[in-house]
Amino acid sequence: MGRVTERRRVIRIRDGAVSTRPDTLVAEEPLEIRLNGKPLAITMRTPGDDFALAAGFLVSEGVLGTTAELQNIVYCAGATQDGSNTYNVVDVKLAPGVAVPDITLERNVYTTSSCGLCGKASLDAVRTTARWPIDDAGDSGAPPVRLEPELLASLPDRLRAAQRVFDRTGGLHAAALFTEDGELLDIREDVGRHNAVDKLVGRALQNGGLPLSRTILLVSGRASFELAQKAVMAGIPVLAAVSAPSSLAVDLAAETGLTLVGFLRGSSMNVYAGEHRIALRAAAAQG
Amino acid sequence: MGRVTERRRVIRIRDGAVSTRPDTLVAEEPLEIRLNGKPLAITMRTPGDDFALAAGFLVSEGVLGTTAELQNIVYCAGATQDGSNTYNVVDVKLAPGVAVPDITLERNVYTTSSCGLCGKASLDAVRTTARWPIDDAGDSGAPPVRLEPELLASLPDRLRAAQRVFDRTGGLHAAALFTEDGELLDIREDVGRHNAVDKLVGRALQNGGLPLSRTILLVSGRASFELAQKAVMAGIPVLAAVSAPSSLAVDLAAETGLTLVGFLRGSSMNVYAGEHRIALRAAAAQG
Repeated sequence: MGRVTERRRVIRIRDGAVSTRPDTLVAEEPLEIRLNGKPLAITMRTPGDDFALAAGFLVSEGVLGTTAELQNIVYCAGATQDGSNTYNVVDVKLAPGVAVPDITLERNVYTTSSCGLCGKASLDAVRTTARWPIDDAGDSGAPPVRLEPELLASLPDRLRAAQRVFDRTGGLHAAALFTEDGELLDIREDVGRHNAVDKLVGRALQNGGLPLSRTILLVSGRASFELAQKAVMAGIPVLAAVSAPSSLAVDLAAETGLTLVGFLRGSSMNVYAGEHRIALRAAAAQG
Repeated sequence: MGRVTERRRVIRIRDGAVSTRPDTLVAEEPLEIRLNGKPLAITMRTPGDDFALAAGFLVSEGVLGTTAELQNIVYCAGATQDGSNTYNVVDVKLAPGVAVPDITLERNVYTTSSCGLCGKASLDAVRTTARWPIDDAGDSGAPPVRLEPELLASLPDRLRAAQRVFDRTGGLHAAALFTEDGELLDIREDVGRHNAVDKLVGRALQNGGLPLSRTILLVSGRASFELAQKAVMAGIPVLAAVSAPSSLAVDLAAETGLTLVGFLRGSSMNVYAGEHRIALRAAAAQG
């Protein structure tokens, strides 16, 4: 670890004044994820939590759902000509008997050449590969999650307060998991927002915590289809973003029952789907 | 075209008041890029300028460098079971005699299994696949590009003024090309910042405008390795970002001679590499 940030010399220009000083940058390095020894994907990520990142990526892909399906994850030494370990290649071994999917380039976004490639096909694919319905009650028979807008509104400040590296570099995306009561469960930072979410989900898999029922996933920035897909695949019922969602993220949320909140700023927010989990009447009474 | 935005119903909560209204969202759909009929990559993008996106992607990959190497680009009809055209699959045909690269999953970030996977290998690969040195003079014998900080500082406002869709959705990244005199050449918006840059570069290829010597590429948000790579592969000498760069973006810029400016806000900016193109003495004299 210890490579989350790196130092570089920078020339600062402030209102015409020029100065040179060392600056702290967010570290970025490639990570190759192998599945049972076979290269599967490469992502540019901030080093650290690499095993969680690989595990979470495979949850998003529908390959992993439980800790028992995972045999182990190791860094591959010897990938370089001199045999040294770059800590940039990990191999995920599935437990015996777990099906190794036939993953090709075409499958990258859950599609097959026969079904055509469109938003609708992408939605269908997430639905058919999802391990769990977004089921608030889970096994407990508890009532559905119902969130006060005030609770949601309090989360972005707590995300920023918990972001350690962003303060120094300004270069990191963050993703955080909260309980339905607003308790911070985990936070991850990465140059890639999708990596930060994969790290959260992978940690949950490693700890036997999937599906992530009754949790709220908060992401800095925008909510793309990919992030909504990752929430659905992990069984997370509420995805909240500080900025705008895309059309396909909203469509996926509407189709799967995911609650999708965008533009979560101050006491304001937009609810794009799954509004049954938001206490709107209470909010209206205060308006 | 015409699918750059889509309308969805949204529930707005503002200080406790709840209202329902239609909202404009940025459109997101998958695009499969095929090369001579063979699937190469899938990207989630905002529809529009798809041929430019595909062409620019192939410039970034080192496959295309000149208009003459490109035979044509078409939408693939018949990719769906009913034979309809989703306009989400494009096929790029290379001109006869142009080498079709052996592109595998492992090649996604310019690496081979023999060289190991690390930031250094990624830098090496960009250097060896680049079509052009970042050569300010080009064939003209003109003096090197030299930019006043004031000119750079004026660009973000002009980017925002030219962003049409962001105003309505808040959900789009933008990339713009300027001349060294600050004249806006082109601007593209997309849910993915890398797509916006590919669309700019692809347009330039289609118009016979590569390499993009003596231009400035300005991107909203952050500067990752991938964006620096795209600038280098297109022969762009200056990359400016409104927010932070990553360590590997700075390393690539330093190694290739790319000028990399970050945190370009108001009259302030940080110069991370290639400072010989910034008129620092003039700036200091004003300090």
